[in-house]
Amino acid sequence: MLKKIPPILSPELLYTIAQMGHGDELVIADANFPAVTNAKRLVRADGHSVPAILEAVLQLFPLDSYVDHPAAVMRRVDKPGEPAPIWDEYQRILDSAEGRHIAIEQVERFAFYERAKTTFGVVATGEGALYGNIIIKKGVIPPK
Amino acid sequence: MLKKIPPILSPELLYTIAQMGHGDELVIADANFPAVTNAKRLVRADGHSVPAILEAVLQLFPLDSYVDHPAAVMRRVDKPGEPAPIWDEYQRILDSAEGRHIAIEQVERFAFYERAKTTFGVVATGEGALYGNIIIKKGVIPPK
Amino acid sequence: MLKKIPPILSPELLYTIAQMGHGDELVIADANFPAVTNAKRLVRADGHSVPAILEAVLQLFPLDSYVDHPAAVMRRVDKPGEPAPIWDEYQRILDSAEGRHIAIEQVERFAFYERAKTTFGVVATGEGALYGNIIIKKGVIPPK
Amino acid sequence: MLKKIPPILSPELLYTIAQMGHGDELVIADANFPAVTNAKRLVRADGHSVPAILEAVLQLFPLDSYVDHPAAVMRRVDKPGEPAPIWDEYQRILDSAEGRHIAIEQVERFAFYERAKTTFGVVATGEGALYGNIIIKKGVIPPK
Amino acid sequence: MLKKIPPILSPELLYTIAQMGHGDELVIADANFPAVTNAKRLVRADGHSVPAILEAVLQLFPLDSYVDHPAAVMRRVDKPGEPAPIWDEYQRILDSAEGRHIAIEQVERFAFYERAKTTFGVVATGEGALYGNIIIKKGVIPPK
Amino acid sequence: MLKKIPPILSPELLYTIAQMGHGDELVIADANFPAVTNAKRLVRADGHSVPAILEAVLQLFPLDSYVDHPAAVMRRVDKPGEPAPIWDEYQRILDSAEGRHIAIEQVERFAFYERAKTTFGVVATGEGALYGNIIIKKGVIPPK
Amino acid sequence: MLKKIPPILSPELLYTIAQMGHGDELVIADANFPAVTNAKRLVRADGHSVPAILEAVLQLFPLDSYVDHPAAVMRRVDKPGEPAPIWDEYQRILDSAEGRHIAIEQVERFAFYERAKTTFGVVATGEGALYGNIIIKKGVIPPK
Amino acid sequence: MLKKIPPILSPELLYTIAQMGHGDELVIADANFPAVTNAKRLVRADGHSVPAILEAVLQLFPLDSYVDHPAAVMRRVDKPGEPAPIWDEYQRILDSAEGRHIAIEQVERFAFYERAKTTFGVVATGEGALYGNIIIKKGVIPPK
Amino acid sequence: MLKKIPPILSPELLYTIAQMGHGDELVIADANFPAVTNAKRLVRADGHSVPAILEAVLQLFPLDSYVDHPAAVMRRVDKPGEPAPIWDEYQRILDSAEGRHIAIEQVERFAFYERAKTTFGVVATGEGALYGNIIIKKGVIPPK
Amino acid sequence: MLKKIPPILSPELLYTIAQMGHGDELVIADANFPAVTNAKRLVRADGHSVPAILEAVLQLFPLDSYVDHPAAVMRRVDKPGEPAPIWDEYQRILDSAEGRHIAIEQVERFAFYERAKTTFGVVATGEGALYGNIIIKKGVIPPK
Repeated sequence: MLKKIPPILSPELLYTIAQMGHGDELVIADANFPAVTNAKRLVRADGHSVPAILEAVLQLFPLDSYVDHPAAVMRRVDKPGEPAPIWDEYQRILDSAEGRHIAIEQVERFAFYERAKTTFGVVATGEGALYGNIIIKKGVIPPK
Repeated sequence: MLKKIPPILSPELLYTIAQMGHGDELVIADANFPAVTNAKRLVRADGHSVPAILEAVLQLFPLDSYVDHPAAVMRRVDKPGEPAPIWDEYQRILDSAEGRHIAIEQVERFAFYERAKTTFGVVATGEGALYGNIIIKKGVIPPK
Repeated sequence: MLKKIPPILSPELLYTIAQMGHGDELVIADANFPAVTNAKRLVRADGHSVPAILEAVLQLFPLDSYVDHPAAVMRRVDKPGEPAPIWDEYQRILDSAEGRHIAIEQVERFAFYERAKTTFGVVATGEGALYGNIIIKKGVIPPK
Repeated sequence: MLKKIPPILSPELLYTIAQMGHGDELVIADANFPAVTNAKRLVRADGHSVPAILEAVLQLFPLDSYVDHPAAVMRRVDKPGEPAPIWDEYQRILDSAEGRHIAIEQVERFAFYERAKTTFGVVATGEGALYGNIIIKKGVIPPK
Repeated sequence: MLKKIPPILSPELLYTIAQMGHGDELVIADANFPAVTNAKRLVRADGHSVPAILEAVLQLFPLDSYVDHPAAVMRRVDKPGEPAPIWDEYQRILDSAEGRHIAIEQVERFAFYERAKTTFGVVATGEGALYGNIIIKKGVIPPK
Repeated sequence: MLKKIPPILSPELLYTIAQMGHGDELVIADANFPAVTNAKRLVRADGHSVPAILEAVLQLFPLDSYVDHPAAVMRRVDKPGEPAPIWDEYQRILDSAEGRHIAIEQVERFAFYERAKTTFGVVATGEGALYGNIIIKKGVIPPK
Repeated sequence: MLKKIPPILSPELLYTIAQMGHGDELVIADANFPAVTNAKRLVRADGHSVPAILEAVLQLFPLDSYVDHPAAVMRRVDKPGEPAPIWDEYQRILDSAEGRHIAIEQVERFAFYERAKTTFGVVATGEGALYGNIIIKKGVIPPK
Repeated sequence: MLKKIPPILSPELLYTIAQMGHGDELVIADANFPAVTNAKRLVRADGHSVPAILEAVLQLFPLDSYVDHPAAVMRRVDKPGEPAPIWDEYQRILDSAEGRHIAIEQVERFAFYERAKTTFGVVATGEGALYGNIIIKKGVIPPK
Repeated sequence: MLKKIPPILSPELLYTIAQMGHGDELVIADANFPAVTNAKRLVRADGHSVPAILEAVLQLFPLDSYVDHPAAVMRRVDKPGEPAPIWDEYQRILDSAEGRHIAIEQVERFAFYERAKTTFGVVATGEGALYGNIIIKKGVIPPK
Repeated sequence: MLKKIPPILSPELLYTIAQMGHGDELVIADANFPAVTNAKRLVRADGHSVPAILEAVLQLFPLDSYVDHPAAVMRRVDKPGEPAPIWDEYQRILDSAEGRHIAIEQVERFAFYERAKTTFGVVATGEGALYGNIIIKKGVIPPK
């Protein structure tokens, strides 16, 4: 436990995001995501929801302003054109953390797996909602 | 030993299936299968039959409902069109565990080896029956 | 994720308790506990309360019936004779899991640290309550 | 799988007993034994009975003829003077493997744990019978 | 780099202090300290002063309020009764971080080495001042 | 040392062949073979002849009956059409172990190296005879 | 600490540059560079500026005189034709260390990442200036 | 294989004796010796006799001339006063290698095990003779 | 130190050349060679000249008689047609060790680096002469 | 190779002395010293003399001025009161490096071994002279 750091962030998760740089991506995965298979680095957060982890991470983690979509979700297999119910909450958390509207990309299921393998790491949560995975891309902290 | 967990599941096997996600596959291999050669992760269950392991695993492991064949066996080399005697028992265990008919794919011997290498892991049993290998694909646990 | 297993139990925690035997002890530690220093094996469960972890573990984990106190808490430093408010909840969870009254031992702070070092492992939770640590001792699963 | 080797012996168990020398001891432990805690080397044989493992091991493993008791069991806590029902079977397997009467020592529970820590290794079986643990001591293969 | 985290804290140092609990100690060592010899865990911060590291660490790290001296320095060998010039700055940083007066213990050189070996870790700085080492003891973050 | 196991087989060699399955291959290499370079797994048997190792291995190791050539030697560079003197002895050992004539393939030197890299492992003997390397392919142990 | 060695060089950084040979390259990266992702070997120097590290390294490290550009920076994304303000200082340090004019190459951002992956290692500094990364190529120390 | 080096010496055995210095001891153990249990470093030489290994080692390994007994064997348990038949051969090899009479110490069985644990390493041979173990102590190579 | 072994050969270098087989190559590299970058296995011999190491290695290491060029040097970049001064000494050492004329191949600088990566290992010497690198290819020790 | 660093210092030796602090000791051992047995950290410098290594190390390594004897040698076993011939050279190198007379302690052979085990590390040279071992103790680099 540290002052100023949300206690839901384990030392391993804190260490992981501290090591990331401009353009590195992090997957916050739902409970059904094949996380061990698709992660270069794995941080477990079983039993937690994706919004709880996302909100805590974004207190410390700047989003990339060099790209159009600094966040991405997995396109639904059942209804490819429609949003999953939980995405509204993600949108709200992203926008609020950055103080601007964040455009979210949708990525087809197997393309999402391939992209996950190239990211810096995967946080395996206990999120029960289907299509609950999200990728966030780290930005720059400008010089003072 | 734990309450509610079939004692034939070793801590390593339990850990392995707990780490798997949607779409990850597990090989339950017979005693002649080249398991060490073809396994990304290996769990030993020497001396046990495939049906005993399969039945125990399926008490905890949901099969994938997104694909046509959530299970696969190795096609016979001697009589490519015919089933191996032990497959009847596999069919019964699969159907009973899921409460529906499970269609089983047949995969040619060397293609089976290649696919085994891409699975999450291999359980090496002592099953003496020829063509006793089976692959199962993990499904989703829906939100409550 | 597995059927029948509480999703708050990470694969690592499941693996840990599955490996334990008769008389082995587990510490479920609060957020201020020096867990890394005092653990032979460490499982992180940051952000969760001790009661949530305790209740999930006890669904699978039998308590020892060979000893007088199959559970222990850390004696308060400030008011050595008085219970911490959270212990009531522990008592309720223990009694309910075993279906009998479980007597809980109180252990002085530094003696508790020494005992923690001899246990099988420590689960590091995010429990904010002071004196929130608990040790549980594993029992036997009788032959059928 | 190898010719002449009982298939219940995993490669790891075979490797373990092949490495042992005169006077080295092996614990074949029941399902409730705290095996991970008390083993210098651990070989898992979940789901198997102690008699099945013992009989297979003794096909390859000579008992020590330099000592009075080349085997030992854990003295009962409940009825310290009485044998556990399963010991009869152990006696029969030991005598038959060596072709002579093998005297079995009884060791108090916590002394048994301490001795287990000094042995070459522990085989963790799924034996459900209480007091089902046995220690065997390796003998010499005389020159031809 | 993360928002809100002083950039002088490397990911390894951040990870180290996040893992510490109540009563764990950290050495921030000067450039001549035999850090590798006396550290259970070592974090390098070559080229930085102790005050710069101390001030950054204390933004996140609470001091222990259960003990009389939550900080300690190495007693001078040359003038055992006198303070080293740099200690004034340490006193100011400690008091300011905690908002109260922090009493600092003086520890004889070889006793300091022995104590360093029992701490959670050592940060090896480039501090050129003699007697520049300091030990800080972690406190509790109270429940909200 | 174990009963029934030829003492020339080290625990490591025994472990290696016990792990192999149907179709896996083993190289028993002569003293000049670049074994470290071309082995996925290496077992040393310095100072022994290839025939001594081959004869011992084949007491436990069934040859593959699914292929035309369950054994292979390195084609001579100096006289590509002629057998090396030691092959007669290999033929006798192979035939005697299986109780049938075993056809031996000849493989060009550099193709032999490439194939060696794909085998399960290499046993590095002290065989002084040139062209003394042999590959054997493991067969199936049929159900009883 | 050693005599003659700038104290800002950690033992790890010293070890790294001592192992490099003719033509090997080193990245000295700014605080936003994705160093962990793109480094074969990583040395942390958090909290230091690139000029401070560069100047210290070049006291020991000869630049390559066999190539046109023994140094390279990352081309600006915002103003591809213009220099970043900090490059002036790099030019001065390079020229002064070698006693001749050093021509600096500009490399497009993603090409820079790919090249970083092929270098000997990356030093992760705390440099806040954008486009603060620099690659240096090691030269030969001529025979005396 | 190397010129001038007896081929029975594996690279591992050669490496082991090359690392030893004045006063370091080596056990050359018979097939029944509990080598894995009592060895700080283990080199396997299964299937070889102790005299064959001893003779090869002593071509490269000088015996210690600072002590009365640069060699030791295990005192017989059955006939404590009598030599084992194989010791004659050891005496001849030792005397011949050094060109002087080498006095051999006899060490009680369990004291021999304890001493083995303090030696540099153990060579596990296939020597079938009982009481076939020998310890040799390395000497100095004098300056030229 | 061992009898008959040149003391300049470290245990690691001795172990390396003992493990090599027919056709395996060794690079003896000069002080400016990028050895860590281009070595599958690295043995350090800082402070020694290439001729000293080469002469010692060739006392034990046979050169390959199956190829036209069992040795290779790096072609000069400055004067591609001319020999480097130190090659005369290499020629003399090679010829003298084998008792016949050894033809030496010249390999272009970057091709030399690529070939180095495929060799068994690299010995990093302190040779100051430019173009001082040499590759030697191991031959066969014929049966007696 | 680096500018200003004596090339006889390998990267490993440089790394070792850079990590040492005030009071840490280094053994520079002769060729007969049992270095592997008595070293916490081992750096090989086979083939070099102790004076060559000592002189190079002392260019970077300050001796301790807090103790009476910042250097120690092994007392002769043959003539306990007399110096070994090589010590004169050590005295000259030590005095010249520090610019003052350095008093050298003599330590009995087995006490020397025990002390060696407590030092930071051992450099194993090829020094042929008997009683050629020396221990040096690191001092402080004072603030500028």
